[in-house]
Amino acid sequence: MADFLVDQLNKLGCTAEKRGIGKHTLAGQEVDLPPVVIGQIGSDPKKRTVLIYGHYDVQPALKEDGWIHDPFKLTIDPEGTGKMYGRGSTDDKGPVMGWLNVLEAHKALGLELPVNVKVIFEGMEETGSVGLPEFIEAEKDKFFTGIDCMCISDNYWLGTKIPCLTYGTRGVAYYEIHVSGPDRDLHSGVFGGMINEPMTDLIHLMSKLVTPQAEILVPGIKEMIAPVTEDERAKFEAIHFDMKDVHDSMGGDVTLSDDKVEVLMGRMRNPCLSLHGIEGAFYATGSKTVIPCSVKGKFSIRLVPNLWVKETTECVVKYVDAEFKKLGTKNKCEVRLTHGGEPWATDPNHYSYRAAQKATETVYGQTPDYTREGGSIPITADFANILGLNVLLLPVGRGDDGAHSTNEKLDMDNYINGTKLLGSYLYELANAQ
Amino acid sequence: MADFLVDQLNKLGCTAEKRGIGKHTLAGQEVDLPPVVIGQIGSDPKKRTVLIYGHYDVQPALKEDGWIHDPFKLTIDPEGTGKMYGRGSTDDKGPVMGWLNVLEAHKALGLELPVNVKVIFEGMEETGSVGLPEFIEAEKDKFFTGIDCMCISDNYWLGTKIPCLTYGTRGVAYYEIHVSGPDRDLHSGVFGGMINEPMTDLIHLMSKLVTPQAEILVPGIKEMIAPVTEDERAKFEAIHFDMKDVHDSMGGDVTLSDDKVEVLMGRMRNPCLSLHGIEGAFYATGSKTVIPCSVKGKFSIRLVPNLWVKETTECVVKYVDAEFKKLGTKNKCEVRLTHGGEPWATDPNHYSYRAAQKATETVYGQTPDYTREGGSIPITADFANILGLNVLLLPVGRGDDGAHSTNEKLDMDNYINGTKLLGSYLYELANAQ
Ligand SMILES: [Zn+2]
Ligand SMILES: [Zn+2]
Ligand SMILES: [Zn+2]
Ligand SMILES: [Zn+2]
Repeated sequence: MADFLVDQLNKLGCTAEKRGIGKHTLAGQEVDLPPVVIGQIGSDPKKRTVLIYGHYDVQPALKEDGWIHDPFKLTIDPEGTGKMYGRGSTDDKGPVMGWLNVLEAHKALGLELPVNVKVIFEGMEETGSVGLPEFIEAEKDKFFTGIDCMCISDNYWLGTKIPCLTYGTRGVAYYEIHVSGPDRDLHSGVFGGMINEPMTDLIHLMSKLVTPQAEILVPGIKEMIAPVTEDERAKFEAIHFDMKDVHDSMGGDVTLSDDKVEVLMGRMRNPCLSLHGIEGAFYATGSKTVIPCSVKGKFSIRLVPNLWVKETTECVVKYVDAEFKKLGTKNKCEVRLTHGGEPWATDPNHYSYRAAQKATETVYGQTPDYTREGGSIPITADFANILGLNVLLLPVGRGDDGAHSTNEKLDMDNYINGTKLLGSYLYELANAQ
Repeated sequence: MADFLVDQLNKLGCTAEKRGIGKHTLAGQEVDLPPVVIGQIGSDPKKRTVLIYGHYDVQPALKEDGWIHDPFKLTIDPEGTGKMYGRGSTDDKGPVMGWLNVLEAHKALGLELPVNVKVIFEGMEETGSVGLPEFIEAEKDKFFTGIDCMCISDNYWLGTKIPCLTYGTRGVAYYEIHVSGPDRDLHSGVFGGMINEPMTDLIHLMSKLVTPQAEILVPGIKEMIAPVTEDERAKFEAIHFDMKDVHDSMGGDVTLSDDKVEVLMGRMRNPCLSLHGIEGAFYATGSKTVIPCSVKGKFSIRLVPNLWVKETTECVVKYVDAEFKKLGTKNKCEVRLTHGGEPWATDPNHYSYRAAQKATETVYGQTPDYTREGGSIPITADFANILGLNVLLLPVGRGDDGAHSTNEKLDMDNYINGTKLLGSYLYELANAQ
């Protein structure tokens, strides 16, 4: 796949090459990581230079998982809906092909691109972009010099009708609270009523993290959230969004609010704390009268600027330790961060976003929604932070494409208009103020 | 095994027979339940009649589980400790053989027993005594007539040195709180901060059941506990008990109190509420950012008189429902009893107990501790309630015998003295006031 991309890029006028990014262990053997493909077309100092990112790896897929068609053979729906089924169709081979189509059109028509383009396509995105941050760091003053802004097409519209530009992603900090007491699991008939039970302590600690109304109770967290500007609020208010869509997507109405802006900001603009589960306790069906001796409560906080992983963790550790002391039990408690990814948000009024808005209006006759992703796309923050770039997330696919699911699809409309959008964006970018 | 017992009993002067108690499904096939063995020796209307219970079934055991010797071949420790290893050695074949030895001695010496004896040995105890309550009910006015009191030897000393008489067992009521919201598990990146999360609700509910100091917060529970009498308190104070033993048995010091009587009453005399775990949430190692759509919190309450299953359940359901309403979430909540067993306690000053105390003093030169079991022996309550009998639990084995564990053992001392104890008890019973 990397060879295919290098070959295509070179044919279309790019100077492209594969670059190794280290090794990893796969099925017990040390093997090379899938290489990144980097390339450049144009180096006119009078033009802006944009960095394009995509990934050529995909999620696993088996026909037996419930695919209608062979997942690795792009299949246009024979019923004429225009859906193109296949693993990677929307995540992220479709958008990558969109970029290649733009180059191909220029080549075929003998046209010069309006901006200089650098591309980087990686092959480890679905496995956490292993090796890529180090590559960005190492090439910071080499391949990645002279770049004005960056565009990534690897996310989706909020719904199925309105295009969007995405200017932020939440980060995540995942924690474990470990409460331990006896050195073996005990029978509640024999020991119940004699001892401080680790589960009781843990449940009390977990209940002090967040209210049923989703208010985070860890002191210091709320204070760190960057204040919402008038401009941001206006952008949320302008988002096309039907509460019914979100109810459908969860199978019922359990939204915290019935107000569109509150629900959208709950997902995109505010942190949240979810309790995921408990390791070490009884979890099966049936009734087991065990007193678990050691339990780990798992929770995570979705982060937004300026809630950084380090500062958030300091607040969490201090609070949990203090709350545990209040319990007055003989058990032991330790809370630790198991992994963290920083939140990211950029200026949606940057000329790159204005260019993308104009391009969207041209192609779709529609002002795009300005959205943020509730989940993490860690590599976005890495590019933004290491290279100091404004990054534009410019999705091609729809919210119902089913990336990572069976029967992932990309609508032909989205593919064609998306390709036009990516091309128009380059033209608007050349002149955007 | 049932045939062996019938044969032995008949040889020793009993009129014994097997009795079917219905069918059950085993490995997909409907088969007869293991029969009960009932028998009678003596019917002198001038003598008291005692009912003896034991069970001939055992827990499963495999040499590979870590047994030093073949678990199904009684092996006397070659190192000379007097430990007799084998599955069932202490639970409950050893005590059953003790009773047979008493009969055998009388037969060999041509002596008449001082009391009339009825015996019932079952073969389903380790699987919940299936069929036995119905048999007791059905034979209430037939086999089980004319009985003055009952003796069961199927529990253990509290420690390893001091014999005990046991006059109560806790019951148990096991509950599930089911909180459900969305119809599918959701990703916390996408939905966190938008919805009422079932786990948050459940953790809050579970935290309201019991404090870290083990105080049960369900209103009405404490009020139902039978008041502690002076006599009872004196019996708890007299128990030989070293805090170090209990710390050793849990591998550390996490006892709620350092006061012997409080710890013992916590285990034997008071109810307790244990939180066992959560079904439906994330439970594995690692970090999964799931919002589970449906979670079941599991907890149980150990019951003591007069906390009966029905009344306790009414308190629990009422309280959990009320607390859930206070959360003000859009999720649904249901709490239900999954199984229950009643607590049992009898009069430890009954003549049967006085007889057992005298017998213990004769055999061991030691006044027995008066204990209660923290766990349940449901069949005890069934015999007591259906037949209206005082039941004496008169253990033969020690607290470290490891019933249900690998390398279950019975000490030869306990076997020999235990047999003497069972025999002496019959003589003391004949005359006890
Ligand atoms: Zn992707
Ligand atoms: Zn993906
Ligand atoms: Zn037993
Ligand atoms: Zn047993």
